[in-house]
Amino acid sequence: MNFRATLDFLLMDWLQADRLTQRPRFADHSADTFAAVLDLSERLAQDKFAPYNRLVDTEEPHFDGERVTLPAVTREAVQAHAEAGLRAAGQDAEVGGMQLPYVVEAASRTFFMKASIGIDAYAMLTTANANLLMAHGTPAQRAAFAMPELDGRYTGTMCLSEPQAGSSLGDILTRAVPDGDDAASDPLGPRHRLTGHKMWISGGEHDMAENIVHLVLAKIPGPDGRLPAGVKGISLFIVPRVLVEADGRPSGQRNDVSLAGLNHKLGYRGTVNTLLNFGEGRHPVRGQAGAIGYLVGAPGDGLRCMFHMMNEARIQVGLGATMLGYAGYEAALDYARQRPQGRPAGPAGKDPAVPQQAIIGHPDVRRMLLAQKAYAEGALALGLYCARLVDEKATGEAAVAADAATLLELLTPVAKSWPSEWCQEANSLAIQVHGGYGYTRDFPVEQYWRDNRLNMIHEGTHGIQAQDLLGRKVRAGDGRALRLWTDRVHETAGHARQVASLVPLADALEDAVALTSAATQAAWRQGRHDVAMHNAMGYLRGFGHTVLAWLWLDLAVLAHRQLAGAGGDDRLLRGKLEAARYFFHHELPLVQAWLAPVIGADDQFATLDTDVL
Amino acid sequence: MNFRATLDFLLMDWLQADRLTQRPRFADHSADTFAAVLDLSERLAQDKFAPYNRLVDTEEPHFDGERVTLPAVTREAVQAHAEAGLRAAGQDAEVGGMQLPYVVEAASRTFFMKASIGIDAYAMLTTANANLLMAHGTPAQRAAFAMPELDGRYTGTMCLSEPQAGSSLGDILTRAVPDGDDAASDPLGPRHRLTGHKMWISGGEHDMAENIVHLVLAKIPGPDGRLPAGVKGISLFIVPRVLVEADGRPSGQRNDVSLAGLNHKLGYRGTVNTLLNFGEGRHPVRGQAGAIGYLVGAPGDGLRCMFHMMNEARIQVGLGATMLGYAGYEAALDYARQRPQGRPAGPAGKDPAVPQQAIIGHPDVRRMLLAQKAYAEGALALGLYCARLVDEKATGEAAVAADAATLLELLTPVAKSWPSEWCQEANSLAIQVHGGYGYTRDFPVEQYWRDNRLNMIHEGTHGIQAQDLLGRKVRAGDGRALRLWTDRVHETAGHARQVASLVPLADALEDAVALTSAATQAAWRQGRHDVAMHNAMGYLRGFGHTVLAWLWLDLAVLAHRQLAGAGGDDRLLRGKLEAARYFFHHELPLVQAWLAPVIGADDQFATLDTDVL
Repeated sequence: MNFRATLDFLLMDWLQADRLTQRPRFADHSADTFAAVLDLSERLAQDKFAPYNRLVDTEEPHFDGERVTLPAVTREAVQAHAEAGLRAAGQDAEVGGMQLPYVVEAASRTFFMKASIGIDAYAMLTTANANLLMAHGTPAQRAAFAMPELDGRYTGTMCLSEPQAGSSLGDILTRAVPDGDDAASDPLGPRHRLTGHKMWISGGEHDMAENIVHLVLAKIPGPDGRLPAGVKGISLFIVPRVLVEADGRPSGQRNDVSLAGLNHKLGYRGTVNTLLNFGEGRHPVRGQAGAIGYLVGAPGDGLRCMFHMMNEARIQVGLGATMLGYAGYEAALDYARQRPQGRPAGPAGKDPAVPQQAIIGHPDVRRMLLAQKAYAEGALALGLYCARLVDEKATGEAAVAADAATLLELLTPVAKSWPSEWCQEANSLAIQVHGGYGYTRDFPVEQYWRDNRLNMIHEGTHGIQAQDLLGRKVRAGDGRALRLWTDRVHETAGHARQVASLVPLADALEDAVALTSAATQAAWRQGRHDVAMHNAMGYLRGFGHTVLAWLWLDLAVLAHRQLAGAGGDDRLLRGKLEAARYFFHHELPLVQAWLAPVIGADDQFATLDTDVL
Repeated sequence: MNFRATLDFLLMDWLQADRLTQRPRFADHSADTFAAVLDLSERLAQDKFAPYNRLVDTEEPHFDGERVTLPAVTREAVQAHAEAGLRAAGQDAEVGGMQLPYVVEAASRTFFMKASIGIDAYAMLTTANANLLMAHGTPAQRAAFAMPELDGRYTGTMCLSEPQAGSSLGDILTRAVPDGDDAASDPLGPRHRLTGHKMWISGGEHDMAENIVHLVLAKIPGPDGRLPAGVKGISLFIVPRVLVEADGRPSGQRNDVSLAGLNHKLGYRGTVNTLLNFGEGRHPVRGQAGAIGYLVGAPGDGLRCMFHMMNEARIQVGLGATMLGYAGYEAALDYARQRPQGRPAGPAGKDPAVPQQAIIGHPDVRRMLLAQKAYAEGALALGLYCARLVDEKATGEAAVAADAATLLELLTPVAKSWPSEWCQEANSLAIQVHGGYGYTRDFPVEQYWRDNRLNMIHEGTHGIQAQDLLGRKVRAGDGRALRLWTDRVHETAGHARQVASLVPLADALEDAVALTSAATQAAWRQGRHDVAMHNAMGYLRGFGHTVLAWLWLDLAVLAHRQLAGAGGDDRLLRGKLEAARYFFHHELPLVQAWLAPVIGADDQFATLDTDVL
């Protein structure tokens, strides 16, 4: 079953994206224009990205002390994507954007992620960067920095982490001080000098764009010269690699930002990852050390601005993990259909006189394929569902929009973490299906597995997602999000109960939801954040699998309805029912095991004497 | 807690290896000589292996079309290991061996595996090869081939797979025909000419030994010229890279074995892996194509001879996976104690004015460390327990030996597969503890993770182990092995019931055993192998975790006893109790989920219409 058919099923049949065209913002669109964007994306990804995915892994970015060299194909692919207008897919038509719904933009992106996540990252980061500036920047900042990003001339980065502060952003030490007497009156925004070190900066240095727009978190010292403590003291700055004139044209002069080195990664090697030094004096500006940066928004408002895009970035990370899982699934399915090995087992065992069969005939290979399908397609459903909520939040009627925003907040940690964990597992299964060949670099699956391992780490680690879910999201608004979600689950279960074969699944789902409720209450029984966090990971896992079971049941209801009626691709629909069955029989029972320590209020992780480790 | 302390605890306190010295074969040994071997191994591994583990990954074996180049450090390490006499650790003293128990030999090996699995593989394969020849070869074969392997001059390989036959050995096509009229009277054994291709041959070509002894599975054609079908037609041959004289001295003349290419792997790169062509005429012998090979044992007896060592090889693969897991655990523990990040959460959340804490203070980091400890130390206990059974089988009294042999057969698929799956997971957790740093090649953990991924594939894939367990082992002797194992579990549970705090664990363990019994009966309810195999992987997982719970409870009983008495390292013992607690609370509950489809006789994997995938 090809990917596009599944994408169309999810996007159009399930999420009914075409209904969005009834809203003013999307009135110029139709199912046809959506399809045209997907066609274009599929073709571009196939032609410009997919053929080079191994190359960008092998020919890792190289730094000779002066410049960073990337394979030429990276620039060509990234440019082709930009020239097709896709960086501005979601922007207003009046600034040259396509004014597409977010869910269609996300669907477009899936093709590039599947073809080469390491190349796509440049485009994804640049769009995220520009979107932030379009939302929070001044008109001059938008014109000078965001527009050249959207039209393909610049690329962008997000500079959050520092060597000593990864997950703990409140501890960043990058310092920003007003740059002279006229600092406040700069047309590009309050001008500061930044000094500090930023770690893990993807796309931080390369030669494939006229300029690189760094969005940098830093702290403005107080009157006593000390940096404000915690996350509330964080501000956001635009720090261009090359300085620009007041009207936005590049001046040709380097800003005081220099590359300290590249990180040599396990995977995701197509994307250059850097350690950047800001303001160390290597490229002095007007004779002075200190990188020029323009404040975005108000001082101390940096994290809020950054998190405006962080939620969407987390959905994108989840989608990236998903598409790696999907790519591995496609490769494994293809291999399993082609590769002969072993024989069908009959009641009496195996008959060596019978010809070998394709390995897809073996029950355990089918298990591995079904698992990959359930993980990758389930994760895709989750990512698109969340993307649809982004549209609902932005363009829905007030009450609907409020609910969508609430539900999106709740589901975001799952949308980020679940694909990162389970599509990684899918990639491991893809290797396993290939046997020894899967362990070689002659097949693509080992790279997918390496690439995917990043996703549990960046944009908030797995542990951070668990804390976000249990520590913040399920409690927000006195648990309103959780009730909203539970209502939707019951709604799905109600529809499922109309179909005899789905009744046991509906029962199992409602049991799992009851367990998650019990776990939430148990975790928060003392009302103390620290106690609740003891088993946050078990909670995330149990909750995540329950969310996926809900989505699979919802898809099964639709597939069943379409099968019963006239429409729909029969094999595709039966495939969805098989994946749902797999998920309920083999995956959902795990929820009980993961939630048991939460419900039992196990405190081992909190009370452990670590000297015994 | 250092590794050696845990190894000593398992080997001496738990498995009481010193008792073996009461047996005639080990009478010259004592606890002191065992300790001396471990001291030597620890030091050698530290000096000659560990410093080069990254180097042998980076400087992957290279083939220029003529010769294969390995880093010089590989040869030096492998030689140092051989010169210390460790290749012959288990051999009789009269042939220059140390005549050590197998469990001590295995314990010695763990140091090298932990230091560099990619270097150790040459030594491990050579010993396995020599052991096979010492058991099944003629005196002349032993003298000509095994002895130079044991003394460090030759290395050895196992040539089983072919490009078209990996898991399905019955389908090999390598052909062996008698070599002329005097073939039968060759002093080195019935001489044949071999032609065929062998895939995935570790150590298949290099320049670090005088000779390479290939042990090759091939088929002798029948009178009609056709190869016999299935595994019963497989014979075993010694095919030296360089031909030897009748008295065993290398003749200097190349045999007709040539390197077709290297496999470029995801990990385990220190070990060269090759595709070998036998008999293609590149190095004709006496003017004729065909590799010279000497039959070992009887025609058609090849697989039996090979499986003589395969069980031990599978234990070794499990131990290798274990030691990679342990190496990652050590690295993660060290990092977690050093790395400051974040703050302790109090009832009111986190106070940014408080200094950052080492990440080992975070509950989720502790979870990841405890999981790694439970996986790696539990797997080590399993591997050593099985190694101890090898000794029991070889030197125990008749009834004890028979039981040990039976139990060993049952546990071998678990000893191979469980560490391969869960110490891989441990390596992933080790990366996660390191955050972004773990994803770089500046830290060792990403390599452990890549190296370990091989272990679910080679020496019988994960799926093959599941089939072996459920399809063969649990049914053998009308279920005698299963009853024997259940008896031991009940014995452990009985001891645990003497300790109040361990009673709930004993209950949980017996529940899990009851589930595995139910699963066994459900799988075999129709008495049909093909039906039983539907959910073999779920069975393997459920059974495996139950085995590990049993071992952890047994260790907990001992730790508790030692804590109550005078002796033992307090921190070490409390660590064992914590790991056992972790395993029972967070891992054992998974058994129910994995066994549910087995007990429910789910037939989805068998009946699936694969066109819907």
